[in-house]
Amino acid sequence: MVNVWVNGQPSSSLSPLDRGLSYGDGLFETIRINEQGPTLFDLHMTRLETSSGKLGLHVDHKQIRAEIISFLATQLSVSSVLKITITRGVGGRGYNPQGCEGSTRILSLFPFPDYPKNAQPVGVALYECSTRLGLSRALAGMKHLNRLEQVLGRAEWQTSEFAEGLMFDINGQIIEGTMSNLFIVEGDTLVTPDLTLSGVAGVCRQYILDQAKSSGIKTQIRSLSRNELLLASEVFVCNSVFGVWPVISFAQQCWQVGNLTRTVQLWLNKVLET
Amino acid sequence: MVNVWVNGQPSSSLSPLDRGLSYGDGLFETIRINEQGPTLFDLHMTRLETSSGKLGLHVDHKQIRAEIISFLATQLSVSSVLKITITRGVGGRGYNPQGCEGSTRILSLFPFPDYPKNAQPVGVALYECSTRLGLSRALAGMKHLNRLEQVLGRAEWQTSEFAEGLMFDINGQIIEGTMSNLFIVEGDTLVTPDLTLSGVAGVCRQYILDQAKSSGIKTQIRSLSRNELLLASEVFVCNSVFGVWPVISFAQQCWQVGNLTRTVQLWLNKVLET
Repeated sequence: MVNVWVNGQPSSSLSPLDRGLSYGDGLFETIRINEQGPTLFDLHMTRLETSSGKLGLHVDHKQIRAEIISFLATQLSVSSVLKITITRGVGGRGYNPQGCEGSTRILSLFPFPDYPKNAQPVGVALYECSTRLGLSRALAGMKHLNRLEQVLGRAEWQTSEFAEGLMFDINGQIIEGTMSNLFIVEGDTLVTPDLTLSGVAGVCRQYILDQAKSSGIKTQIRSLSRNELLLASEVFVCNSVFGVWPVISFAQQCWQVGNLTRTVQLWLNKVLET
Repeated sequence: MVNVWVNGQPSSSLSPLDRGLSYGDGLFETIRINEQGPTLFDLHMTRLETSSGKLGLHVDHKQIRAEIISFLATQLSVSSVLKITITRGVGGRGYNPQGCEGSTRILSLFPFPDYPKNAQPVGVALYECSTRLGLSRALAGMKHLNRLEQVLGRAEWQTSEFAEGLMFDINGQIIEGTMSNLFIVEGDTLVTPDLTLSGVAGVCRQYILDQAKSSGIKTQIRSLSRNELLLASEVFVCNSVFGVWPVISFAQQCWQVGNLTRTVQLWLNKVLET
């Protein structure tokens, strides 16, 4: 059972003319809720606000924060996932956003996903998706509602052998998982793909980069090839719901779970679980 | 006032958990309706069926055709635009489409757009959009619901001086208008951009290519640069609602309305207006 609020009120109904549906004209965030409340909340809200500005959405961010607090106060405080969707609201036919001064705000609370139990301690196998991610400077980085490539990527495997799939861009560079970002360890450096032209700049990825900086661990954001991944000493994927999953296999390569991966995993568990 | 049916029934309500909203996981068609009924109907339905197959949507195309006929029978027969939206239906959180065996079918009827009266006889000026279209082999060609780039492109100008905007891909090649396809005339040949990696393969574009073939007029589908456009002898944009608009200016270049443009315009007016 999913609880949903639309524009500050419990609702199970949205206009079929909403631009979120017509064009994917909007954004979303998925936030892990634990007994203390939303986690990594400021990073999520900052990304939402920054991306709203880029898309020119008319959003009152104070109002959204207030609605989230009211919404969560009505829910039982169990481990769950809050999804925030913001669209440009109802519009006519046609791409022109002029005249769309409002927004649609959807809050929905989902049970915590049924992730594989061994994913955190033991690690996961990565599937190699053949669906390629497009390149688009205007849209890269944002968690917008245009997510067909992720749907097609995720549809490629259904066996439980793989907990996540790795996606490449149309030039064959590694971008991210279908629902996560990727890091590798090279020497003593954390490396994660550059997302200037493709991918979602995850809140968890940002938190890891920030923590590494304040811990004196070197980081690099750059383009990353399949071969560099295969030669890495450690590999992990991350998102703001599950935290960090060590990657123990991809294609013919296998890895042990490394020390830096465990360190980063602890950073995230500290904020996500307590 | 817009009339809407959802899944075969009059409705003003859609689930906020529909995957069309969550991910843009679906397709649409916009069809001009005249007094005889829907125009270019078979081309629209063929594209919808082909694209549904590519996305793995579970759609009963006979049912949709039947719903369209019933829907239109309840409407006053004035000049209007039918929008058909098909999504993968309601789903949980997460990209995986497994288990989504249904679909959501939305039919909506809009008044005929308030296009500039001189666009057909006199021609239009094209705005040069700075928003670039991404490259994605998996999605190119389809009229799917991931249309944020078109929204951003169309948001770039609001003056009535320009009736349409021209969009380039991230490599600087011409792809299409925000809501139309583009043709140029080079010598005696109709040239239109290749849409293998970007753009929407419009029904009107397809009709023009088919008609040209059966009329013995040469056509080329290939990559097209800004310079080639500027050197063209004729330029026009087209879609299945407005037909053909001659382009009379773009950047510093101006054109007369040419004979081949007028020929193609007549082809379309014949099927769209009568």
